[in-house]
Amino acid sequence: MPAKLAPDRNRGLIIASGDIGTDERSAQLLGRLLALLAPQPRVVVLGAIGGSDDADVDIEPTLYAAGAGEVRRSIVRNRADSDQRTLLDAIDHAQLTVLTSDQPLRLSTLIGGTQLARAIRRRNAEGMAVLGAGAGAALLCEHMLTHGTEGATPRSGGATFAPGLGLTNRVVIDQGGHESDRLGRLLAALALNPFALGLGLDVATAAVIGPDNVLEVIGGGGVTIIDPAEMTDSNIADLAPGAPIRITNLRLHALTGGARYDLDFRRALP
Amino acid sequence: MPAKLAPDRNRGLIIASGDIGTDERSAQLLGRLLALLAPQPRVVVLGAIGGSDDADVDIEPTLYAAGAGEVRRSIVRNRADSDQRTLLDAIDHAQLTVLTSDQPLRLSTLIGGTQLARAIRRRNAEGMAVLGAGAGAALLCEHMLTHGTEGATPRSGGATFAPGLGLTNRVVIDQGGHESDRLGRLLAALALNPFALGLGLDVATAAVIGPDNVLEVIGGGGVTIIDPAEMTDSNIADLAPGAPIRITNLRLHALTGGARYDLDFRRALP
Repeated sequence: MPAKLAPDRNRGLIIASGDIGTDERSAQLLGRLLALLAPQPRVVVLGAIGGSDDADVDIEPTLYAAGAGEVRRSIVRNRADSDQRTLLDAIDHAQLTVLTSDQPLRLSTLIGGTQLARAIRRRNAEGMAVLGAGAGAALLCEHMLTHGTEGATPRSGGATFAPGLGLTNRVVIDQGGHESDRLGRLLAALALNPFALGLGLDVATAAVIGPDNVLEVIGGGGVTIIDPAEMTDSNIADLAPGAPIRITNLRLHALTGGARYDLDFRRALP
Repeated sequence: MPAKLAPDRNRGLIIASGDIGTDERSAQLLGRLLALLAPQPRVVVLGAIGGSDDADVDIEPTLYAAGAGEVRRSIVRNRADSDQRTLLDAIDHAQLTVLTSDQPLRLSTLIGGTQLARAIRRRNAEGMAVLGAGAGAALLCEHMLTHGTEGATPRSGGATFAPGLGLTNRVVIDQGGHESDRLGRLLAALALNPFALGLGLDVATAAVIGPDNVLEVIGGGGVTIIDPAEMTDSNIADLAPGAPIRITNLRLHALTGGARYDLDFRRALP
């Protein structure tokens, strides 16, 4: 479950974004996101690097250009790194923590259950914003989508979950891969987890979830929301691996910049 | 509008299928489809060939193996071909006409407005089944989806229509390309045509529409249905080309073999 809010504090923003790079669209998005925070915010960027450094993007200069007052970048290479005192202090004083990773399991398995994970949850409940970018977006969820298969049709075994940071249990986030395969992956995920809303994110496009659980889209791309609340039928429990899943009566919204959606009442706002 | 039914006759089946090849799954699908018709049916296969013959698949042997009594294959190369007396006679005596093409416009521009097109419409109203396979499936529709862009997010200009054969006005059919891009293409199409249901088809998987307008899925893959009846919001009229489209409150169904859907009442049947 998400951490309990302090009675006199608002939870910080939970920001799920598609991949953020060093291009102009990403710079614009970061500028608009940082404008939602205190002026010249202190930012901690957490990254995890696997076998290759290729997936690592240095967003430090872009964050400064977007208005950050201070950026501390920490690459977590092993679980011991997660409990360094200086890193925990930085989280304690940050207005924003950014989660990046080449794939969701890399970061979740390094920080899951550590003091660092507890600090991020506590600080978000106290008001610190957390931005999960690309594969880092999946980490925001209690039930984190780790892998998915290709195509428009959901298939048994086509979505797999692992525990995430758990800042929200309202959504499951499709963290990318080929964005065009979003439909099959999200439907397979919702067949397994019909409690949550499915959220799919275009690159350089963010869903910003406020303390009132209203989500707003920021950026030039689209956000897909799939709501299984009225789902009447799924045969997932009976299927062999790889078989297509039957799942009916889902509600679908394609949102663009400026659109808002209420996660509690599950409706697009005018 | 679809041709008027003769008062004492049932309209023939309208069968929309993803690509059909010469593989085992395609053979199975054709066997099950032909079993819906009179024993040893007479079949006409209409194809259109463009610059290259690469896209042409010879399904004659597969049709015979699936139980066809007689198969006549006609490649339409120009509009005059469409008015050959022998071809029109064959349509007059066929129990099934199969439409194939490398892309929807190739066949539609060759036969649109010809005696052949009128014969197919009249014979379908009298009881002849029509199977549109792959790009041929789009032709079944009154408003035919000809092209679409990539990705999960619908974009302005991301779907273009042309007139089809018009056997049904109930659906717009996503004829393939990369099936994983189905979500964006169908949503862009429905933003332009919110009267119709969007139908997306996996390869070797068919949606069989009976004279009662109940659709049944046959085959090993999935069929996506998107219903815009309750759509509350779209900004498509205001967008620059390429901009993402906002469109909310669509209903989504992922159907698999054996599932049925009522096109008149727009609901999945148990």
